[in-house]
Amino acid sequence: MRISELAARTGVPLATVKYYLREELLMPGRATSATQAQYDDAHVRRLGLVRALAGQGLPLDKIKVVVALVEDPGEDLFVALGKAVMALPPYPGSLSGADDSADAEYPRTRALLERLGQLYDPRFTAVAQLERALAALDSAGLTMSDRRIDVYGEHIRGIADLDVDLLPTTSRQETVEAAVLGTALYEPVLAAMRRLAHQHRAARTFSTAADPGSSGCTQPDRHPQETQ
Amino acid sequence: MRISELAARTGVPLATVKYYLREELLMPGRATSATQAQYDDAHVRRLGLVRALAGQGLPLDKIKVVVALVEDPGEDLFVALGKAVMALPPYPGSLSGADDSADAEYPRTRALLERLGQLYDPRFTAVAQLERALAALDSAGLTMSDRRIDVYGEHIRGIADLDVDLLPTTSRQETVEAAVLGTALYEPVLAAMRRLAHQHRAARTFSTAADPGSSGCTQPDRHPQETQ
Repeated sequence: MRISELAARTGVPLATVKYYLREELLMPGRATSATQAQYDDAHVRRLGLVRALAGQGLPLDKIKVVVALVEDPGEDLFVALGKAVMALPPYPGSLSGADDSADAEYPRTRALLERLGQLYDPRFTAVAQLERALAALDSAGLTMSDRRIDVYGEHIRGIADLDVDLLPTTSRQETVEAAVLGTALYEPVLAAMRRLAHQHRAARTFSTAADPGSSGCTQPDRHPQETQ
Repeated sequence: MRISELAARTGVPLATVKYYLREELLMPGRATSATQAQYDDAHVRRLGLVRALAGQGLPLDKIKVVVALVEDPGEDLFVALGKAVMALPPYPGSLSGADDSADAEYPRTRALLERLGQLYDPRFTAVAQLERALAALDSAGLTMSDRRIDVYGEHIRGIADLDVDLLPTTSRQETVEAAVLGTALYEPVLAAMRRLAHQHRAARTFSTAADPGSSGCTQPDRHPQETQ
């Protein structure tokens, strides 16, 4: 297809497609004349990847890291996956806080992962990310109980195992691409699903209204009371 | 305690404490003279709440909404919980996209929640939030399979049920405060835990290195290979 058709099919403005070509985020098409080139499904997929990452707020240099890893994952797929996911936000710089120097050893994260018996690479950005999140809990006067660590750990592992099971294994490129997209794009899905599950549960636990309709909850087939 | 001690004990700068007093995010102390007041543990806790919400990037007017609901949850705790959590980001405005008008009915979210049999209030911001997240998946060429919906739904419900079970019921104020903090502060914890669970699982699935140490993974008691 021609570049105008590529833009139309992906919904990415033509000027943006040309910009991605110049920045080498999109690989060149097959030249058919001095001024024209042909594009194919690989370009459609690449545009989908770049747009999804840009939509997550990734800066251009980080998108380049991911694209380079998708193009050439190298020998060890595990290492490529780690590098690609480390290009995703939040970045260590944005995780800074007053007590960062004291937390360089990530004591809270280490204790949590040791309790769960999980392998981890201390250089992985998620380690610093978890430490910051646990420090924020501490300073709000909340501390994660062992029960919460165990239950969260069990369910999160159930989710993560499915994520890895569902990764395509047709090619290393596709695996890295799917891992990056899956990490970035399912995080907001899971956060919203948790809030909705709270509402579902709280509607049954806390509603004091005599009229079940007053909770504002909607469910097509069943009446709120019937699900209790 | 005096205001200087309140600042020292919470680690919030004195100027910030005075600012929160002026903005009525912090309730006044008990006046002991024309220029002095005494503060207590309720002030310490309130400062923790305000700081935690500010640290999550909440604007002042949204923090005021949460604080007002903590102070006066009203008759129906469920309604107060819903309002308080709706004050948390992401906000509908920041969820805007090209296809918002077409998605005003939240077709993806409705289908997902109907499949899971969950009650929901269509006015709840998490509904719009989930719809945007699912639309982003669609435009990246991913679509959530029924298996993924079921597995995510089951595990997220396990997490959310625990969250609700662990809410304090000593007073309505404490319940609302804990629900708001728990929603906001555990989201980054869960996102980081998922990334670490991916690494744990991927280290066992994808590492092609002969030397297990080359994956960079650390675990104090066991060798990576032994956990397989």
